[in-house]
Amino acid sequence: MGLDTDISKIPKHLLSESDPVFAFNKAIIDATKDLCVAYKINTAFYEALGTKGWQAMEKTVRYIDDEHFKIADAKRGDIGNTSAQYAKAFFETLPFDAITVSPYMGEDSVKPFLNQQGKWAIVLGLTSNKGAADFELQKIAYEDTSHRGNGFLYEKVLKTVSAWGTPDNLMFVIGATQADEFAHIRKITPGHFYLVPGVGAQGGSLKDISEKAMIKDCGLLVNVSRAIIYASTEKDFAGKARSAAEQYCTEMRSYLPKEFIS
Amino acid sequence: MGLDTDISKIPKHLLSESDPVFAFNKAIIDATKDLCVAYKINTAFYEALGTKGWQAMEKTVRYIDDEHFKIADAKRGDIGNTSAQYAKAFFETLPFDAITVSPYMGEDSVKPFLNQQGKWAIVLGLTSNKGAADFELQKIAYEDTSHRGNGFLYEKVLKTVSAWGTPDNLMFVIGATQADEFAHIRKITPGHFYLVPGVGAQGGSLKDISEKAMIKDCGLLVNVSRAIIYASTEKDFAGKARSAAEQYCTEMRSYLPKEFIS
Repeated sequence: MGLDTDISKIPKHLLSESDPVFAFNKAIIDATKDLCVAYKINTAFYEALGTKGWQAMEKTVRYIDDEHFKIADAKRGDIGNTSAQYAKAFFETLPFDAITVSPYMGEDSVKPFLNQQGKWAIVLGLTSNKGAADFELQKIAYEDTSHRGNGFLYEKVLKTVSAWGTPDNLMFVIGATQADEFAHIRKITPGHFYLVPGVGAQGGSLKDISEKAMIKDCGLLVNVSRAIIYASTEKDFAGKARSAAEQYCTEMRSYLPKEFIS
Repeated sequence: MGLDTDISKIPKHLLSESDPVFAFNKAIIDATKDLCVAYKINTAFYEALGTKGWQAMEKTVRYIDDEHFKIADAKRGDIGNTSAQYAKAFFETLPFDAITVSPYMGEDSVKPFLNQQGKWAIVLGLTSNKGAADFELQKIAYEDTSHRGNGFLYEKVLKTVSAWGTPDNLMFVIGATQADEFAHIRKITPGHFYLVPGVGAQGGSLKDISEKAMIKDCGLLVNVSRAIIYASTEKDFAGKARSAAEQYCTEMRSYLPKEFIS
């Protein structure tokens, strides 16, 4: 469940609360916690409100119980000593379990997110947006024992980054809109979980990604944000969000192996 | 001047202040404002302190006068609707003039930072760190009218991104440690300013970048952080920071065309 909470889109009656963003998140979390395994907080929407927004984010992540996986969707990444500060910000100062990381600056920018027990870096692989074509889907010249010639940049990223971590501290962002690449991506990174955005408002197919990239321990954390949290902008928003989440659950359940369904 | 203010590295006597990070920054700014054209705030060091850190960042950027260019070194970048929230965070909620942006996710992740009057996106080109070799310096296959065959990924980034903006809303991060590439980089992006980290603690040469990439309006914003702000960890820290800054100024002045020197 993606908490991309935009103060201009939440129900108007919440604006009289002392912290409208937290009030909204609390109601959404209460209404959906038995329907999802993880909450993903998109830091941009909180930073847009300045210090107050950062405070709402802090309250929200502390409100989520320890049964749920807590993802900071922050797309951070900088030289080593700076990435170490970001790791501190999200893994120590705040109790997130995982953070999304941009790979552009290479190994020393990613490693500080990989060396904390029980925490995950979720590195951008092939994203869900149109701009993925600009660099991620450009052909890059590289060689390894299994593959010679030109492959896409994102493949080079998946292969290179997966050598820096293990499925126990590293996942990848793979957009649900990139159906053509799913089977190939799973071949390159057979054991890693993927954080899958792009289902819902961005139009990606839950069926496609499930059929082509699910593994025996599932291996997919499918995120839906806007299509659930803004299902209604009226007082019934939490109930309507629950109904929308239930629909995604029902669909996801139909693709899961039997042993996952309780 | 880079304000990478790490609470574990500032003089101990400041820790009794109500906001030690802001107290440190205020003293550094007061001691150096006639010696630099810009302040660069590295968001990671503030986020590491949570809400209090975000507050210290907010106070710091508001304390810097309008004569100085204010850079959020934040390395942001996400799908369009999320990047728009980051642009709001740093250009509207906070009064920064520029923000560093990661290009990995392509056009829609960069564009929201380019469409605000009088604001700049500073996109990562070739960074100063060792990890630049992992992806930025990988050969990518591309063609354009002036260049056929394999060039580095960072060249593709410079060429592609420079078509999305102009020197009036777009700069690039070019690490001072990448001396071999400076002349070539200036050829690809003849009119853009570069934000140049890597001088000081990272060992890059001010002389090299000045000789090879300076243009008639200078075109270089050279950043030094640690080598200035941590020149002393005693009560004389502000004076020692000023002395360190003066040394960089004197050196930079020797490379500048005469018309720049007042």
